[in-house]
This record gives sequence, C-alpha cells and structure tokens, in this order.
Amino acid sequence: MSESKQREGVLFVVSAPSGAGKTSLCRELIDSFADLRQSVSFTTRQVRAGERDGVDYQFVGHAAFQQMITEQQLAEWAQVHGNMYGTSLATLEQGAVEGVDLLLDIDYQGAAQLKKNYQQGVFVFILPPDLAELERRLRGRGTDSEEVIRRRLKNAEKEMSQAGWYDYLIVNDDFQTALQQLSAIVVAERCRASRNPALIK
Amino acid sequence: MSESKQREGVLFVVSAPSGAGKTSLCRELIDSFADLRQSVSFTTRQVRAGERDGVDYQFVGHAAFQQMITEQQLAEWAQVHGNMYGTSLATLEQGAVEGVDLLLDIDYQGAAQLKKNYQQGVFVFILPPDLAELERRLRGRGTDSEEVIRRRLKNAEKEMSQAGWYDYLIVNDDFQTALQQLSAIVVAERCRASRNPALIK
Repeated sequence: MSESKQREGVLFVVSAPSGAGKTSLCRELIDSFADLRQSVSFTTRQVRAGERDGVDYQFVGHAAFQQMITEQQLAEWAQVHGNMYGTSLATLEQGAVEGVDLLLDIDYQGAAQLKKNYQQGVFVFILPPDLAELERRLRGRGTDSEEVIRRRLKNAEKEMSQAGWYDYLIVNDDFQTALQQLSAIVVAERCRASRNPALIK
Repeated sequence: MSESKQREGVLFVVSAPSGAGKTSLCRELIDSFADLRQSVSFTTRQVRAGERDGVDYQFVGHAAFQQMITEQQLAEWAQVHGNMYGTSLATLEQGAVEGVDLLLDIDYQGAAQLKKNYQQGVFVFILPPDLAELERRLRGRGTDSEEVIRRRLKNAEKEMSQAGWYDYLIVNDDFQTALQQLSAIVVAERCRASRNPALIK
C-alpha cells in the first residue's frame, strides 16, 4: 500500500537567516527523500552563478511579480534584502491534489503568512551556532558585497527573534547532525495520528 | 554544550496490542540512544523466561502493588490480562530532576492517565499490519497458552480503538522501517521549539 495515497500532502516550511545553511540542508533533504518535492519560489532577485531558472527559483521581473500579487496568485510573499520572493497558490494546490509533501525554503515573513492559512504545515527554523559563526560563513561564501553582508547580519538578529513561533528549532552547528534532525522531522511528522485518519478505525 | 542540560526531559510513551512488536522496538530504541532511559514498570505478572527483575520489570506481589496504589506512589497503573502494571512517580521525578528522556512501554489505560498529567509527553501507538498477522505473531512467540492468545486477540481490537488520541501512529509491518520511524520521533521531538526555550532569545 502506498503511504502517500493514505494521507494529505504535508507542507514543510523551513526558514533561517542567510548563512545558517538552510539552502544546503534543504538540497540534501530533497536528495534523500524521493517523495518530497521542493517548492520553487518566484523571485525578482538576480540569478547567482550556478542557479537555474525553474529549478532554484522562478526568476521574474518586478512588473510580473507585482501582477501576481494584484491577481492574488501568491500564497505568501515578502520583500527580503530589497528583492521580492513568493510562493504561488498553484504550486501548493498541485501538491495537495497529487498528495505529495512539499518543502518550502522561505523567509519568516512568508512563513508567518502560511502559518495562518496552513495550520497543518510544519514550521522549522534553522539557527546558526552564533552570530560570529554566521558572519564567518557569509564572508566565506564570497558571493556578496560588504554592504550586502552587513545588511544580512543586521537582518539575521531580527529574523532569529521570530524563531519562537516555529514548531521546531535546529541549530546547524554540525551539518550532518542538523540534516539528521531535519530528516527526522519529516519522517516523524508523516507518522502523526492527525495525518493518518485511514489508520484509525 | 550539553543538549540534555538545556531542556527538560521528555516522556516518550509507547503503547501497542500484544504481538505488535512494541517490546523489541523499544529495546532496539534504547540501545541506539545513549541518552534515553527505559522506565522500569512494576508488575504482579509472573516472570517470563529470560526476564530479569529490576531490568525488564520490577516484579512485586499483589499486596505490595495494592499498597503503592493506596499510598499514591504510582503515576499510572492498569490491570491488563489479569495482571497489574504501574509506573512509580519516583521514576518520573528522578528522570525530570536528571533531565533525561524516559521511555515508557505501557498499556493504553496507563497512557491515558499520563496524558492528563503530562501534556508535554509524546504518545506513540504501534499498530500491527492487521489482526491476522497479530495472531500469527502471538502463536509464533510460543510463550502463551491458547486461552491467553485468545484473550490477547480479543483485547487487541479494543486497544487499537484507542490509537486515535495518540500523537503518532507507527505500523510495524517492516521492523527496520518502524524502528526508523520511532527513532525519528525521538530526534524530532527533542527539536521542538517548546522544549528548547534556551534557544529562543
């Protein structure tokens, strides 16, 4: 019997300040779960080296993004570091129809919007060990200007103050431990009694 | 930094009908988590071959058990298949003081009592794939009389009707999959934001 046909798809929402390792953790998680699909966000941000349109993000212009907002096509959207990010309702609806679990790698502002409409979603916040380590990682990445790094660090404290309302907290000190914890959350949440009404006679 | 010092100990309560594989799963779970301690129940049941007093159970007489009830020394107790089983308050209090996580392998009647007083506990119900498989396992075990097997099967349906109020459901079809799910629940629950106030600044 197929597990995914027995229950509704689960929405896994992962947030973190830049540099906490969220993107790498989500990528590894997707690779290790054949039945977990990454939700691809829309963004107005510039494409970074190595990123592919339609895979990492759906890259759109400001006018197109504004139109999606106006036409209420987005389940959540937020402005982060001067760029727009959002998840389309169509992406979530398709996941629900197919009964697949979706992984959303989004900022706390968007997560807070989803929390209102998707109470059954699972909200995970990834924390860096501390702010000094976060700064070291942001500089080590070598993709951002000094101005951007300073802005990200300033925002990180604000973002981390939101961690309290998430369901789960993971400290990404050791990558493999953090990945094991994130994987465990996926496996465990799929076993929730409330998600498996067919098992309760 | 020690994880266990940051948060209160978690109470993991596991129930299942006889033959669902609960005891083997709990034993393997305890072996794979150095920081998870098995709570040893008191029972008036006869010692089975291979069982050790103080390790598998604390074997006591009916009079001694009755005295613990009278003196309100038990956090939960229940009569199952004609025998008494119970967990002492002292066991739970010691776990709380030491900040260790406890695993309680108890019947649904006792679990329901704990659910009232330990809201933060994690309640897991193990289901057999179906009743035919349960019967096959009970007979294969070779430790019980025909009368006992019939009583266990009759009780199994009643026990399984309680699964709905548990937090998690695990179908023990494949042992390793079930063990992975039980382990994931332990790892995930330790990451719950509500259990890690020290991480939220």
